Amino acid sequence: MSQLQKEIAEQPGVIGRLLDDAWADTERAAATIRAFNPPFVCIAARGTSDNAARYAQYLFGHALGLPVMLATPSLHTLYKRPADLSRSLVIGISQSGAAEDVRQVLADARKQGALTLAITNIADSPLGATAETTLLLRAGQELSVAASKTYTSQLTVVAMLTAALADDPAMRGDLARLPKLAEKTLELSEAIGGWSSRYQKIARLVALGRGFNYATACEIALKIKELIYIASEGYSEADFWHGPIAAIDALHPVVLVAPSGPTLDSLRTMQADLVKRGADLLVISDDEQTLADATTPLPVPAAPEWLSPITCVMPGQIFGMQQALARGYAVDKPRGLSKVTVTE
Amino acid sequence: MSQLQKEIAEQPGVIGRLLDDAWADTERAAATIRAFNPPFVCIAARGTSDNAARYAQYLFGHALGLPVMLATPSLHTLYKRPADLSRSLVIGISQSGAAEDVRQVLADARKQGALTLAITNIADSPLGATAETTLLLRAGQELSVAASKTYTSQLTVVAMLTAALADDPAMRGDLARLPKLAEKTLELSEAIGGWSSRYQKIARLVALGRGFNYATACEIALKIKELIYIASEGYSEADFWHGPIAAIDALHPVVLVAPSGPTLDSLRTMQADLVKRGADLLVISDDEQTLADATTPLPVPAAPEWLSPITCVMPGQIFGMQQALARGYAVDKPRGLSKVTVTE
Repeated sequence: MSQLQKEIAEQPGVIGRLLDDAWADTERAAATIRAFNPPFVCIAARGTSDNAARYAQYLFGHALGLPVMLATPSLHTLYKRPADLSRSLVIGISQSGAAEDVRQVLADARKQGALTLAITNIADSPLGATAETTLLLRAGQELSVAASKTYTSQLTVVAMLTAALADDPAMRGDLARLPKLAEKTLELSEAIGGWSSRYQKIARLVALGRGFNYATACEIALKIKELIYIASEGYSEADFWHGPIAAIDALHPVVLVAPSGPTLDSLRTMQADLVKRGADLLVISDDEQTLADATTPLPVPAAPEWLSPITCVMPGQIFGMQQALARGYAVDKPRGLSKVTVTE
Repeated sequence: MSQLQKEIAEQPGVIGRLLDDAWADTERAAATIRAFNPPFVCIAARGTSDNAARYAQYLFGHALGLPVMLATPSLHTLYKRPADLSRSLVIGISQSGAAEDVRQVLADARKQGALTLAITNIADSPLGATAETTLLLRAGQELSVAASKTYTSQLTVVAMLTAALADDPAMRGDLARLPKLAEKTLELSEAIGGWSSRYQKIARLVALGRGFNYATACEIALKIKELIYIASEGYSEADFWHGPIAAIDALHPVVLVAPSGPTLDSLRTMQADLVKRGADLLVISDDEQTLADATTPLPVPAAPEWLSPITCVMPGQIFGMQQALARGYAVDKPRGLSKVTVTE
């Protein structure tokens, strides 16, 4: 069994552990943020963690009315001309806590007077040492180069922090259901091993999502790229209309992340258009009709929409892993990558 | 001659016209912004205009210390839960001014009390009618579906607004040189027609840039995608290390946008690594050694780095157009696209 397979399977447990153990830390962080009362948030992250940042961007906006910018690290590292972040909450997300550019953004911001928060799996890391406050992922060591459980635990930490800041019991109630929903998602995804060889020859893939699940589309595309080296692109479904859709024809499978919620109609319109263009559609959804209209349905359980990125990414992780197996690739150690990537 | 070819050739003239005619409007907009004194900026845009927004994100941060977020339109259109933008400057960028989601972001923000600014080619457009202030592109009608002159005029408007806000005579001096630099760039790019058939069979391309030219990498990748339908992805060179680089081998040409300036060393390191991986490198640069180390050099004139996105994109536009010609595609009307795309 590969490390990746083990780590994917650990996800419901990791999420459950966060919900059991991390509320006190989360409440403390929320109190600090409430006291600071930032007019906006800046998040620095790379790779998979950057997709967790995208989730936070939509969720903070939606639930807290907080505008979120994604950082521009080169202004800190190469140009040495950071913007004025002194009034903002600056969050660094890094599994290893070793991302030097992410650390630099937090160091600059803290010097300016910003409130800084690290979200990392490694307490004793450069990022943890730089931030005033740290929220830990509590995911255990992740050995697979392609991240899985640290991604869903990043999303869970972001979701818990949002629920604490919103002080909303309904959100807490939703979160309490999450470990079971994650388990159910993994069960429903077992079938993927049976049919994924159907896609063994694809050289290109596009993943589309919207709103909260824009992050999911980006993360699934990244996973596929890391694991099987094909051209795989994640888009907001709306951006996709503005040019990239020209490239779609019958040869190009498209993953649609289309759970129930305010984005579903929009994704259904895209689905109908893509059917006309002859695309092969892999559809992640809990909606029966949406699944029925797919070339390949990837069912997930019905979940509160704001938490659906945590379940919806899992079929994508498993599809990527099964593709790597079908192609005979080194699942845990993709070529040319290392687990910790340090960029400036 | 295609419309696209004509419109690419018009760019030095369009930029010159902006510099001749638009300073008064720009100064007025700058005065309004200075009076409002926003702690951050939010920019809404789609497609090519979104790449102009990326340029503004880096330039406002660098020159003005102003943090910039890119908008999350679905929070406005689908979720109807916009974040609190009341204290911010909210800019909508749209060639046609008809992008409904961009307009909605500005309408919500204006209702909240934000300062709103439209950057568009069409004064009498829904976006222009929604914003308090409009800066016009003055680019003349653009008929090619793939945008060229409206992109470089968007960048020029952003650069002029930045120079006005910075109240920096050196920046104005740099801008005055821009029409000549654009002309020189087009001259140097004439050679592309001679060799571009060498790339006639490529099915995939990656474009990498950093800092100001992250936008250029994204825009070149989008142009290629629109014009020849291949998988083409734009990345920050730093993000590329975090996963996507796994996909690169000898079959995949990489466009490096590597003008002189603080990002060059970083891009040279990437260049050396990609040479080892056997990638075919098309390099846009004014630096002799960087060009000498390319598979295919795409020379541009030395320019002030902050304005280099305006010159560096041009060889990419021309490469895309020549590829479309070599492949016998409809240059002015890519399949499945229309000039004005309206999304929610």
